[in-house]
Amino acid sequence: MADYTKMWQELDVDIEKHDGLCEVLPMFYENIYLSQENRPENMNYYNFVISEVHGLRIKELQDSKKEDKKVVGSFCVFVPDEITLALNCVPVGICSGSQFWVPDGEKVMPRNTCPLIKASIGAKLSRTCPYFQSCDMVVGETTCDGKKKAWEILGEHMDVHVMDLPQMKREKDKLHWIDEMNTYKDVLEEKTGNKLSFENLKEKTELVNKKRKVLKRLYDLRKCDPVPISGKDALLVSQIAFYDDIDRFIEQTNNLCDELEERVKKDEGVFDKDTPRIMITGTPMSIPNWKIHHIVETSDAVVVCEETCTGTRYFENQVSEDAENMDEQFENLANRYLGINCACFTPNEGRVEDVLRYVDEYKVDAVVYNSLQFCSTYAIEYKNIEKALKEKGIPVIMIETDYSEEDTGQIKTRVEALVEMVREKKGVMA
Amino acid sequence: MADYTKMWQELDVDIEKHDGLCEVLPMFYENIYLSQENRPENMNYYNFVISEVHGLRIKELQDSKKEDKKVVGSFCVFVPDEITLALNCVPVGICSGSQFWVPDGEKVMPRNTCPLIKASIGAKLSRTCPYFQSCDMVVGETTCDGKKKAWEILGEHMDVHVMDLPQMKREKDKLHWIDEMNTYKDVLEEKTGNKLSFENLKEKTELVNKKRKVLKRLYDLRKCDPVPISGKDALLVSQIAFYDDIDRFIEQTNNLCDELEERVKKDEGVFDKDTPRIMITGTPMSIPNWKIHHIVETSDAVVVCEETCTGTRYFENQVSEDAENMDEQFENLANRYLGINCACFTPNEGRVEDVLRYVDEYKVDAVVYNSLQFCSTYAIEYKNIEKALKEKGIPVIMIETDYSEEDTGQIKTRVEALVEMVREKKGVMA
Repeated sequence: MADYTKMWQELDVDIEKHDGLCEVLPMFYENIYLSQENRPENMNYYNFVISEVHGLRIKELQDSKKEDKKVVGSFCVFVPDEITLALNCVPVGICSGSQFWVPDGEKVMPRNTCPLIKASIGAKLSRTCPYFQSCDMVVGETTCDGKKKAWEILGEHMDVHVMDLPQMKREKDKLHWIDEMNTYKDVLEEKTGNKLSFENLKEKTELVNKKRKVLKRLYDLRKCDPVPISGKDALLVSQIAFYDDIDRFIEQTNNLCDELEERVKKDEGVFDKDTPRIMITGTPMSIPNWKIHHIVETSDAVVVCEETCTGTRYFENQVSEDAENMDEQFENLANRYLGINCACFTPNEGRVEDVLRYVDEYKVDAVVYNSLQFCSTYAIEYKNIEKALKEKGIPVIMIETDYSEEDTGQIKTRVEALVEMVREKKGVMA
Repeated sequence: MADYTKMWQELDVDIEKHDGLCEVLPMFYENIYLSQENRPENMNYYNFVISEVHGLRIKELQDSKKEDKKVVGSFCVFVPDEITLALNCVPVGICSGSQFWVPDGEKVMPRNTCPLIKASIGAKLSRTCPYFQSCDMVVGETTCDGKKKAWEILGEHMDVHVMDLPQMKREKDKLHWIDEMNTYKDVLEEKTGNKLSFENLKEKTELVNKKRKVLKRLYDLRKCDPVPISGKDALLVSQIAFYDDIDRFIEQTNNLCDELEERVKKDEGVFDKDTPRIMITGTPMSIPNWKIHHIVETSDAVVVCEETCTGTRYFENQVSEDAENMDEQFENLANRYLGINCACFTPNEGRVEDVLRYVDEYKVDAVVYNSLQFCSTYAIEYKNIEKALKEKGIPVIMIETDYSEEDTGQIKTRVEALVEMVREKKGVMA
């Protein structure tokens, strides 16, 4: 890997502390990812991306800035990348998946806060995330109490714009969201000096739809048995989608899917046919949070679907491309984004329907409901999802956890018991 | 006390379980309240109210229902009682302050949920709260993640209407809140068959303002040194304001204030002059949550103000009475309600200003920041309030607690240390 120290210094990264992070990640990745057998060859691209996660991609962001592009960070699938891209900005999902950042977050946030939020804030405050350091601004949203209040703290340290996501999905809430997207557009126009055009927005809408399509293509391939790609690898692809160059990502992921299609034709998979198929539903998993997937896939089971924001919620439903003017464009955007069934909405019946549909589509044997600690909305929705799954005869366990490794053994025991039950039911021996 | 068993049975109260609650409360109240020395004589009214808390007041509600009034429960200071009253309904604040209800709440809610929410839900599910059982409907609001999702569960058991409180305070958010109040009006009109008139709303607006005025009068008297009423008693009056008959409450509380004025004239107080004066700021305390006040006032200090929803946030700011038509009425209501500086808003700078102003007005020596466990919004705001108070030289401690008594000793130790520090600073001996 090239030496990026100078670049990091220019970004005011805390070099010494950041070195600590850089030392850990490669071995962590090797243990979890490179140890997998029978991986698709095209995963090499994503291996490379990870090996350069704070290097080459950050250099690309700096190069973009030299071309007068602004870098805009976000933390949530509701922030419309279409608008960001159409105003000649580079959208990046922000680091929030490592325990490394949690202690610094806890200096300004209560411990009883979800680890994703503590890690985000800690990443900024400790100056050890070059993505954060590259951002000209970040866009927060009012999706939960913790995030809503975290932006106030973050705003003391950098330029933050908050989008007020509605809490319901009535017609007037859609109008409110259209208005919020317009305000976001105004803020970005002011920031960049650019003007949003119908053509640009149309072009970028089609581009982001292409990204959604390739992710959908990848997920559709996971419906096969044997499954041609591990859940861990699919999760990684999803995670990288949040910050990689969008054109390259689409191309590379299509290449991966081509390879997976060949595998499917040859009835090849990464796990044996009839391996217990697990769906994970719940809160997002950002890099390098691979904890639950790793546990499942080292317990004689495979993750075939994630009903999460780093899974189906990120790519399901296209933005309609039939708009003939800007107002229609914004309405189409609102329709797509408010179609996401996040637990932040009340009510949120659509999520139960999604989960049940995915169980059928992905031939799911059992569900792991994963909630980040102190995430009230997802934790509270568990009872409803559990009830619906039980009525369908699908076993489910609830795992509430953070980024630490302390509970790994305990979680593994529970997952193994779940897998064992599925195997008995299917009549398959481990 | 009369025998209300038949009434409770008619309300489908779980009599046996409810007996368990009734057995505990009187002794609990006696220990905490009746043990106080030098109480104002007019506190006898509130003693009586508590002794009949599940009796006479519930009977009154049943009598109202016979007169075709609907009983409407709520959990939050944002639900506009003016509209409820003007449509000939009886608003009641709902039980949520006892550990007694928490285990039943935890059957359907995650343990990592604020005790107030768990207690509310548990009170309904266990059928041991005759207020809940008397309600024709309850009105929830989207003030926090936990409540927002709790209404979904509650809605499986009774008629629930949810008001979508905005998360910001911009002009468009005010319009949104006006619209939500109109929707609430529509729902109540449908429920009651009544029609909201300008005159009725005007009359009830003036009535609710009168309630606010008498509470303000009570609080203003607490600014004196020696303070003529204990914090515990003032809290009780506030708590009772949420569900007592409004006309009687205003009358009785004015009587109490008359007595307190006499005390002030005679320089009489419930605690010695120069007793350390504590302000409590944070989350609401509903009956019978007297935990922190009792600890403070048995530690040689007195609570002189609550910057909480069962304190200043409930009565500060009147609704302007200058409206000449319904639209203006609703705008005046919105202006008053969105003037409440609840941590559910982002940003919420107004709360820091309120806290600093009360420190001066109430001659506060130290602040106890009280947050119910797992209340993210208030817990996160602590850092900001702490910073502002420290800059002003006012000591502050953060107490995060639930309804159990397990941490009482630990909290008392911390409060005593705080009081000791204040005494040293003031040069007063205990």
